Parts: sequence; C-alpha cells; structure tokens
Amino acid sequence: MRFYRTFVEGFDEVLGGGIPEGHVVLLSGPPGTMKSSLAYNILWHNAVQEGVRGVYVTLEQGRPSLEFQMARMGLDPGKVADTVRVQDLSRIRRGVEEMRGTARSGPPSEKPWLDVLKAHLEDMRQTQPFDLLVLDSLPVLEIIAGLRERRITLFHFFGWLKSLNVTSFVVSETVPDLSSVKDEDFLADGVIHLTMERVGDIDVYRRIRCLKMRGVEHSANIFTLEFREGRFRATQVI
Amino acid sequence: MRFYRTFVEGFDEVLGGGIPEGHVVLLSGPPGTMKSSLAYNILWHNAVQEGVRGVYVTLEQGRPSLEFQMARMGLDPGKVADTVRVQDLSRIRRGVEEMRGTARSGPPSEKPWLDVLKAHLEDMRQTQPFDLLVLDSLPVLEIIAGLRERRITLFHFFGWLKSLNVTSFVVSETVPDLSSVKDEDFLADGVIHLTMERVGDIDVYRRIRCLKMRGVEHSANIFTLEFREGRFRATQVI
Amino acid sequence: MRFYRTFVEGFDEVLGGGIPEGHVVLLSGPPGTMKSSLAYNILWHNAVQEGVRGVYVTLEQGRPSLEFQMARMGLDPGKVADTVRVQDLSRIRRGVEEMRGTARSGPPSEKPWLDVLKAHLEDMRQTQPFDLLVLDSLPVLEIIAGLRERRITLFHFFGWLKSLNVTSFVVSETVPDLSSVKDEDFLADGVIHLTMERVGDIDVYRRIRCLKMRGVEHSANIFTLEFREGRFRATQVI
Amino acid sequence: MRFYRTFVEGFDEVLGGGIPEGHVVLLSGPPGTMKSSLAYNILWHNAVQEGVRGVYVTLEQGRPSLEFQMARMGLDPGKVADTVRVQDLSRIRRGVEEMRGTARSGPPSEKPWLDVLKAHLEDMRQTQPFDLLVLDSLPVLEIIAGLRERRITLFHFFGWLKSLNVTSFVVSETVPDLSSVKDEDFLADGVIHLTMERVGDIDVYRRIRCLKMRGVEHSANIFTLEFREGRFRATQVI
Amino acid sequence: MRFYRTFVEGFDEVLGGGIPEGHVVLLSGPPGTMKSSLAYNILWHNAVQEGVRGVYVTLEQGRPSLEFQMARMGLDPGKVADTVRVQDLSRIRRGVEEMRGTARSGPPSEKPWLDVLKAHLEDMRQTQPFDLLVLDSLPVLEIIAGLRERRITLFHFFGWLKSLNVTSFVVSETVPDLSSVKDEDFLADGVIHLTMERVGDIDVYRRIRCLKMRGVEHSANIFTLEFREGRFRATQVI
Amino acid sequence: MRFYRTFVEGFDEVLGGGIPEGHVVLLSGPPGTMKSSLAYNILWHNAVQEGVRGVYVTLEQGRPSLEFQMARMGLDPGKVADTVRVQDLSRIRRGVEEMRGTARSGPPSEKPWLDVLKAHLEDMRQTQPFDLLVLDSLPVLEIIAGLRERRITLFHFFGWLKSLNVTSFVVSETVPDLSSVKDEDFLADGVIHLTMERVGDIDVYRRIRCLKMRGVEHSANIFTLEFREGRFRATQVI
Repeated sequence: MRFYRTFVEGFDEVLGGGIPEGHVVLLSGPPGTMKSSLAYNILWHNAVQEGVRGVYVTLEQGRPSLEFQMARMGLDPGKVADTVRVQDLSRIRRGVEEMRGTARSGPPSEKPWLDVLKAHLEDMRQTQPFDLLVLDSLPVLEIIAGLRERRITLFHFFGWLKSLNVTSFVVSETVPDLSSVKDEDFLADGVIHLTMERVGDIDVYRRIRCLKMRGVEHSANIFTLEFREGRFRATQVI
Repeated sequence: MRFYRTFVEGFDEVLGGGIPEGHVVLLSGPPGTMKSSLAYNILWHNAVQEGVRGVYVTLEQGRPSLEFQMARMGLDPGKVADTVRVQDLSRIRRGVEEMRGTARSGPPSEKPWLDVLKAHLEDMRQTQPFDLLVLDSLPVLEIIAGLRERRITLFHFFGWLKSLNVTSFVVSETVPDLSSVKDEDFLADGVIHLTMERVGDIDVYRRIRCLKMRGVEHSANIFTLEFREGRFRATQVI
Repeated sequence: MRFYRTFVEGFDEVLGGGIPEGHVVLLSGPPGTMKSSLAYNILWHNAVQEGVRGVYVTLEQGRPSLEFQMARMGLDPGKVADTVRVQDLSRIRRGVEEMRGTARSGPPSEKPWLDVLKAHLEDMRQTQPFDLLVLDSLPVLEIIAGLRERRITLFHFFGWLKSLNVTSFVVSETVPDLSSVKDEDFLADGVIHLTMERVGDIDVYRRIRCLKMRGVEHSANIFTLEFREGRFRATQVI
Repeated sequence: MRFYRTFVEGFDEVLGGGIPEGHVVLLSGPPGTMKSSLAYNILWHNAVQEGVRGVYVTLEQGRPSLEFQMARMGLDPGKVADTVRVQDLSRIRRGVEEMRGTARSGPPSEKPWLDVLKAHLEDMRQTQPFDLLVLDSLPVLEIIAGLRERRITLFHFFGWLKSLNVTSFVVSETVPDLSSVKDEDFLADGVIHLTMERVGDIDVYRRIRCLKMRGVEHSANIFTLEFREGRFRATQVI
Repeated sequence: MRFYRTFVEGFDEVLGGGIPEGHVVLLSGPPGTMKSSLAYNILWHNAVQEGVRGVYVTLEQGRPSLEFQMARMGLDPGKVADTVRVQDLSRIRRGVEEMRGTARSGPPSEKPWLDVLKAHLEDMRQTQPFDLLVLDSLPVLEIIAGLRERRITLFHFFGWLKSLNVTSFVVSETVPDLSSVKDEDFLADGVIHLTMERVGDIDVYRRIRCLKMRGVEHSANIFTLEFREGRFRATQVI
Repeated sequence: MRFYRTFVEGFDEVLGGGIPEGHVVLLSGPPGTMKSSLAYNILWHNAVQEGVRGVYVTLEQGRPSLEFQMARMGLDPGKVADTVRVQDLSRIRRGVEEMRGTARSGPPSEKPWLDVLKAHLEDMRQTQPFDLLVLDSLPVLEIIAGLRERRITLFHFFGWLKSLNVTSFVVSETVPDLSSVKDEDFLADGVIHLTMERVGDIDVYRRIRCLKMRGVEHSANIFTLEFREGRFRATQVI
C-alpha cells in the first residue's frame, strides 16, 4: 500500500510517513487558514516530485483566480500543467456536456448538481486516470447541491468518494470545534485541523493538527504551521 | 456471573475486574479517540486469550478497511479469523438474503434498515452463537435507519440489545459533555468516556474514564490512555 | 407529622431530621451519580430499620438487573423481600391486567401508558398499602408516555403524586444546572442534587446537595458523597 | 403615598423605606431561594404589625402544604387568620362558583383559567378589600392558563394587576440572568432578585438584590440573605 | 446644525458637544439602568435650560406613574408642563380620535397600532411642533404592534422616525451584547449603552458608553454613571 | 495586475501593498467600528491621490446624512464630487427608472429589489465606468431584498459581484466570531475584521485585522486602529 506525503515539512513525520492510499481526508478550518493552499501544495509537490496525477475541483473560485493565487504562493501551476488539472464550476458543466454529447435531452445543469459532479469525475477517472483529488469546498458543494437531508447525503457522498479509488481531500470551512462532532468528522478516514490562534494581544498563529487518521499511529499534538518561500512547515515553536 | 476484561492495562482494575455479562456499554468519544481500536481490542484479546466469540458490526467502514486498520495497530485479524467475525453493511444485507432464501418478496434492503440489522444479528446468534458484540457506530446507525423519533427508537433498540443476551459495546461519536445528558447515557448499563485533552499549547492527551457501570463499584476518575506496541494502557501519569 | 431519613450519614442532619411525609422529592443528577442506589438505599434502610413499606418502580432496567446491582452494592433485596416491592415495565403491565380481570376489552398496554402506571399504583395502594415510592426515572417515563405537552402533563402528574398520600422520590437524569430552571424543580416539594465534579486533572468526586425542601430549614451547602461498605456518607472533606 | 416594608432587616433601608403603593413587583429566583417564604413574610409582618390585609394565591401547593411550611418557618398562619387569606387552586374555582351562584351555565373550570383567576380576585376585592397580593407563581400560572402568546398576554396581565389598585408581588421561578432581559422584567415596576451563589467548594449563600424599583433611589448592590429565628436579614457579610 | 446636550455631566464632553440634530439614538440597557430617567433628563434639562420642546411617549407605564417617578428623581414635571408633553397609551388613542373627529368609521384602536402611533405623532408635529422625542420602549412597541417581520418593520419604522425631522431617543430593553449585533443597532444613527456591572461580591455599578454616533468623533470608552441630587454624572472613577 | 491601497497607514504594509484588483472584500464588524468611514476612506483617497473612480452604495442612510458624516470626519465629499458617486436607496430607484425610460409597465420598486440594484449598477458600469464599489451594508441589503434562501442567494450575489469586474467592498454588520464561519466569509476573496476590545475597566480600543486575502501573503496579526486628523492608522501599540 502506498502512502502520500503532504509535503508539509515536519508534518509527514507526525503522520508516520503520509496518508494511506484510498483515504478520504477532511481538511477542516475557518477562512484564512490556508486550506486551499495546503491542498494544492499536496497535489503540486506530489506531481512535481513523484509524477502523481491530481485533480483540483474548485467551487469557491474560478480557475484563473485559483491559479493566480497559487502562482503568488510560489506554486506555479504552469509547472504541473500536465499532471494537475484544475476544474471549476463552468468547466465541470461543460465537461459533462462534451463527454456525453448531444444525445441527452435537456440541459445538464438542470440535473441534480451532485450527480453532475459525480458523473464528471467518473468520466475523467475513466478517460484520464488520476490518483489524488481535492474538493474545495464542502459548504459550497452543499449550497450548490441544495442538500436537504445533509446527514444521509453526506454519508452516501463519502461512500461514493471511497468507491472512486483515489485518495481525496475535502476542504471544509468550519472552525474545528472540540465541543461537538460533525458528521463529516466520523465519515472521513482522516481529519486534519487548520486553525488560527491568538497569542497575547497582537499575534495570531496558524496551527495544524492531525485529529484522526485511520491505520496510522499519529501524534494528536498541535503544531505551528508556517509558510515561507513557497513551502509549508510544521514546527513546535510557539 | 461472568465479567469481561477490557484488556486495557490498569483499567480492568478500575472496573474491579471487568464488565458484567449482559451489559450494554456505551463507548463514547469524538473522532480520533481510538474508540474502534479499543472496541476491537476487547474482542481480539478476549478471543485470543479466552476463546470468547465476538461479532464486530462496522457501519462506518468496509470490512477490508477496518481489518487493514487493526492489523496496522498490531491486532492481526488473521489470528482471530475463527472467533471474531467482522460484519459490514454489504455483508449484513447479503447475510439476511442468504439466510431467509428467495421466498421473500421484494428486496430486503427496502425493509426498515433497523429491522434488517436486528434480523441479521438474531439469525447469527442462532446459527453461530457469540458472546460479545460491537456496534460501530450509533450515529451511522441513526443515519441509515433514518430514526425519526430518536428517543423512543433508542429506548426500544437498547431494550432489544439487552434481550439478545450478549455483552455489547455501542460506539458513540460524541464529545462527552458534562453539561447535558444524552438518552443513550441513561439507557446503557455502562458508559466509558474517551476524550482528548489539550495540555498547554502543544500537547494533546487521550483520556479514558468509566462514567457509569451498573453493579460495579468503580472509580470515576480520569486516566491517560496510551497505546504502545499493540496494547492499551490506562495510567495516572499526565 | 413523620419525617423519613435518607440514611445518608451526615446528610439527615443537613435536612434537620429528614424528609417531611407526603413530599414529592426530585433526585436529580447525570448518569453515574448513584441516583438509583441512593433511592433504593432510602427504601431499603427504612424497611430494615423502621419496617416502612416501599415500592420501587424501575423503568430503566428489568427487576433482575436492578436487584443484581443492589445486591452488589451491599443492599440485599432478599432482606426486604416482604417490605420493598420492585416493579418493572413488564410487571406493571401484567399487574394491571390481573387486577382488573378479563372484563376489559382491548389490551391495557394500548391505553395511554401514564394512565396504566397510575392505575397500577392506585390498585397497589389499595390492596397492599405502602409509604415510600421511588419512580426511576422521569425521562424514561417521558419516553414511554410520549408526553407532548410536557409542562402541563408534569404539572398534573406531580399533583397526582401528591394526592397518592405517599412520600415519593422521582429520579431525574439531568445535570443540575444553575443557569436555568426546569419545571419539575418548582413542581417538586424537595430537590436533591447529585453531581460529579472533576478536581484537578485526575480525580472526580461525587457531590450531594439539598437545593430545596419545603418546610425544612436546611443548609444549601455542597457535600462530598461517599459510598463505602454498603453505606452512603456525606462529608465536608474534599 | 404609602410605602410597604419588606420586613427584611437591612433591606428596607436599601429600598429607602419600602415599596411604593400600587407597584407590581417581581420576586425572581430559582427554586430554593425562599421566594415563597419571603413573599409570605411580607404579608405576615405587614398584617401583624400594621394590620394590612393581604391575599396569597398559591398555585404551586395546596393551602395546607403552604401553611405547614410557613408555620415551620416561624410565621404562624394562625396569628393572621383574619388578615391574610391563602387561596389555592381548588379554592379559587370554588370561590368563583359560590360568588356567581348557579345561574351560570357550564362549569367555570372550563372557562379560560386566567379569566377565572381575575374574576375571583375582582370579586374578593369588592367584598373583602385587601391591600397586598402575592401570586405564587408566574410559571405555574402560565402552565394552567396555557399562554400561547406569552408576550402580549403578560403585557395585559401586568396592566390588569396595576388596575387592581393593590400592591402585588409576583413570584417568578427563574435564574436571574444578567445576559438577557425577560418581558416581565420591564413590565414590572420593581424587580427583586433572589439567588444562590457557591462560594468555594462547599458553601452556598443566598443573595438578595433590588434590580429595579420605579420611583425609588435604591442601591443596586448585592446582599447576603439570611433567615434565622423567623426573620429575614440582608447583610453585607459574605 | 444644532447639537443637543444630554445633560449628563462629563458625557457631553465625550460626545464632543452633543447629539446631532435629526439623529435617531438608541438608549439600550437592561431593566434598572435608569434608561427612562436618563431619557426624561434629556428632555427636562433641554426644556428648562434651552426652551426646547419635547414629547415623551411612555408605553410601559401610565403618565401619572411616570411623572411620580420623575418627581421623585428630582425632575419635577410641573416645571416643564408647557414644554414637555408626556403621552401614554390611553392618551395616544384618545388623541387620534379627537384629532380626526367622528367622521371615521370604526374604532381607531382596531387599526394597526403602529399606524395609530405614527398618525398621532404626525398630528402633534403639525399642530404643536416639537424638537425632541422619546419612545419608551421599543419592546413594548413590538408587543403592542405585534410585529411579525421584525427586521423589515424596524427598518421602515426607523426610516419614518428620521423623516419626522426631530431628534429622537428610542429606549431599548436589552442587555448590550458584545457578541451579536441587533438590527436596531445599525439602523440607528447613534447607540448609547447603559449597563450594570458587578464589581467584586457586593457592589454593582451603572455604566454608560457611547457605542456609536454618526458624524461625531466620540470616545468609545466606558464611564461610571452616577445619579445624585437630581443630576447624572459620567465619571472615570470605578 | 493592479493593487488598491486602503490608505490605512501601516495596514497597506500588512497587506503587502494592497488589495488585488477584482477581489470582493468583506469589511466586517459591529456598529461603531467605523466600517463606513473606512470604506469611504478607501474610495476618497484612491480618488484624490490616484484618480480612481468609485461608487458608494449606502442603504443604511440617505446620501446627505452620509456626506455630512464624512465631511465631519475630514473626508470632504466636495473634493471628490466628480470621482466618487454616492448612491442611496431613493437614487437607485430613480436611476433605474430614468435609465430605462417609461416603456416599462409597473413601478420598478415592485420588482425584486436585488434585481433593481444589479440593473442599476450594471447600467452605471456601462455609462460611467468605475473601479471601486462599496456596498453598505449587507444586512440592510438582506432586509430590503427579503432573502429567503440566504446561502444560495449570497453565493450567486458574490458571484455576480465578481463578474462586475470591479474591486468591491461589502460592509457587514457582524461581530467577527472566531467560533463559527459565516457563508460570506468563504465566499469573499478577502475579509477584514474591525472590532472593539475592552481593555481593563474603562478603555475600549478599535482593532483591525486581515483575516484572509486570496493571493496575498499577509500577516494575520491584530492591530490597533486609530483615526486622527482625518487619517486612519494601524499600529502595534496597545
């Protein structure tokens, strides 16, 4: 079995080598915790250093906006043009249409959106296989898909993600909350928390923590997450 | 009357020997507290050391995923292949179909799911008796069964569990909360809390505590839960 | 007027002698605070030492389970076989059927359950009078009776309890909460709080406190509740 | 204009002499804070020392229970038999029936309960005038009257109380909460808070505080409330 | 442009001179914080010292009750009989009837109450112009008017207040809450918070603070509010 | 790509130069945190110093009220009469009518308000192009537009804002809350928090913080926000 590195210096050691192949991993944190950058970082470095093929589904931004942002962070999308494909909302709709041709009656956009996304990814998986998948983000997926019965829809969606046979990262826009449990937390195989903590009156630090990773004897400790010169680092320094 | 050990070093002493036969025990804690591993640990060691037969019902993962995870924890499922049976969602559906033959009209999966699970376990109990049962987990059971009247359905489900005449462990994905009482807490004969506590800025410790165990004069104190070299230990070290 | 002792060493002094005859007293606390044991302790000692007749209605467990638990606590049900009757759910249903014969049409179990319980206790009161009543527990009563209008049903139920002319103890599975008031708290004549408090990182202590006792000039202070060698004790030791 | 003393030693000074005639005053606190005793204390002492006539409407208990409780507190109802009338639920229903004779069709108990209470008190006011009124308690009134639109019903009820031209005390079973405002708090002319506070691990003290008293320049400070030898005292001692 | 002083010694300096003409200002605080007295104080002193005409709409009390209360505070309504008019609920209803004569069919009290109030104030404004308006209080207005869509009704009501071309003070019975925003807070041009704070075990202090005042460079600091010998003072003394 | 300065001294350095062109930025804070002044400050200084054209949509106040307020803050609207246009509710309605002429049947104000606003801004964008847009404020927009499905309407509205090809600032009247995530927080490209913090018993300080800014490596630290002599400054002084 293969393990995928996060390419966060110091954090792969915490995970005992990386994330087991086939896992569905939640990247959970409030806005501003660099979730998208971390997720793209995983795809980018796995592509550049290991030749791993990835798909990044961005529902929050358009593809140009995401790629501008990543280039500014030092992760040049041009260097992984062949291995990391970025898919945004408009591309997904178009992709499904192209793939299935004109035989279909009615516009695909009027089909349940979750089915459109699943069909698109299944199509891609067949024609251009990939190993890593990022879905950014879960709440926007919920908004678009108009989930009514959140619990049961999430249960089936996470089941479908596992059945895709890729290793996937689901970005969740929530404040990791130690006093309650969200459904996605126990449905996922792994949960990585990204937070911001105020230290004293002025300083705010980013933190990273592996809450859960099935099949991995990981530390549950909290690390400071730094981003400098295009690389993430997890340190014990406060 | 028989008492079952948890095989958590130091914790069986807290319980005054173990868990009384026939009890329904809640294993309660948030994701990442090693509830599944602890539950499997109880079945595995009772099987290896005492020849006790167990059934592990996993609704959160498929059987291969659970067995991979347990093997990685040092609890080799191969060593208890004859005594500990792992049942996942697909197996339960199939089991019911095989057992009851083709005489039945309509697919069993369309029957109320809770009844399917009960029928499956009652069938197993008759044909291949067992002594210990793990149900992992209660919230996924709720999702699948679509409980509408949670309180009364839980009341009857826990009553049915007691009537099975096995000792059962129900995994619950909740943050043990000292400021409110959940229905399952008073419906169960015993409640074991698993938590994570942040100590200082960096360190996170796992804790174990016996909140309640009918018929046992147990300590209510809180212990640090360690897992090392394939064995759990409860210690007073912070 | 008669006063009933709780037989909690040190606590009867706090109450200035005991609980006034005819009171409806709430025993309120979360799971694991020994509410059932304390309630049975009151019946058991009043029976053994004063010959007082009691009825213990257990809705959470079957009678054998409760009696096993009490025997393990050093309160042998065999010693009070004639004076303390334990009634569980199945017995209550049967009792009502026997009592009223076959003349009635339709199964009694299909009548509103609260009426069944009331009829059963009124029947018992007439044929085999008793002085002390324990109802264990209020939330299970709520589950079974399917209370829709909780406030008004509780109001009438507590009124009915007072009209029974026995001294009654109602076990309530709640965390005594200093920031809100529950209806049962002001409907009862007395409220005794049982809690668990964490002291430091490791230790958890049980506490007892008389919140309210009409007609008694009691202390409102908090005491540590200990159970050792079959007897409860309230002490000021932390 | 007349001012009524509370006969809580040290507290009448806080109020600058007492409560202005005609005010509607809320006595607000959780169970166990001696609200009923304090309210009865006001009626009892005003009757004994000033010959003031009072009516105590108790909805939480029967009259014998309340009078037993007050006698035990050293406030002998026998001494004010002519001046303080205690009215409980059954008496109020009967009173209305007697007063209005048999001419009325249908049972009065089936009329809206709030109207029954109002009619009863208006009748009493005409035939046997009184100056002080206690209504114990507001939440039980709400339960019995089945208030649907609480806000507007309370608004009109407090308006009706003011129109009665007596000085009234309304007992409210709530935890005085500094983080939210209840409708009754601004509808009343005065609010007196009764609370219990835990000091350290063991001790619980009763507190009294005048939150609001229209037309009185009172202190808003918090005092310890003691009850000893039949008398209340407010002190600054902790 | 004119600025109105609050006549709270030390606080007009905080405001840099006073409240800009035409503003709608919220006076926000829980019961007992002297909101009514402060509002009347503004009208009274502006009348006595500057000859400014004011209208005080009291929905919580009758006019005699308010005037008794103000007289007791040292703000004699007799001294401003010609300049400050107090309007209570009954007067408002009557006013509208008188003003519009008998031509109207049906009782005005059955019209939407908010429209009645608006019509009454618009009538007054035309026949006897005024410059300052107090509305005491917003929650009682809500109760009487039976606001269903609070947000949108408040939006239009505050807009109507601004269109009246007077400077108005709206009394709001809420605990100023730093963790949430109420609609009236951003709809108003200014917000003055009145609070009570417990200092230590015994003492409770009143506080005043200008949260917001459009067009004024005010301090956001918190001051102690004292009332002595008929005058308010804001000080930095704790 | 262009970056717009905020003209908050010391804060543009925190942002590494400014806000990327085309971003939708949330200005989030409770009443009294100078959000409107800060937003206008950005438009005003960009106009005066760089000749950038801006539109300020004020839904909370009328245009005269806003301009009076800004003039008092030292930001004279007269100096930017040609470059910064202020639009209030009445002007927006009128604008749409003028623009589209009389051909339309029915009053535009009865059309969904959100569509009216969008049409108005699209019209303006075509006839008199602008680069910066302030929308003050989001909650009033919600009130007027009567958003029923807030999540999905916000998602589309933010998408529409991005499609306008201007850099926009949306004022949000909320207390920045570190324990929950609002939809607008992850829909926006940037989030700037404005807060007030009480320091000690008396002092209240304004704070500013960049929570999130896509494509910018900004500090997440907290700064004190001062406004003096017509200019904002972010400092590390407490």
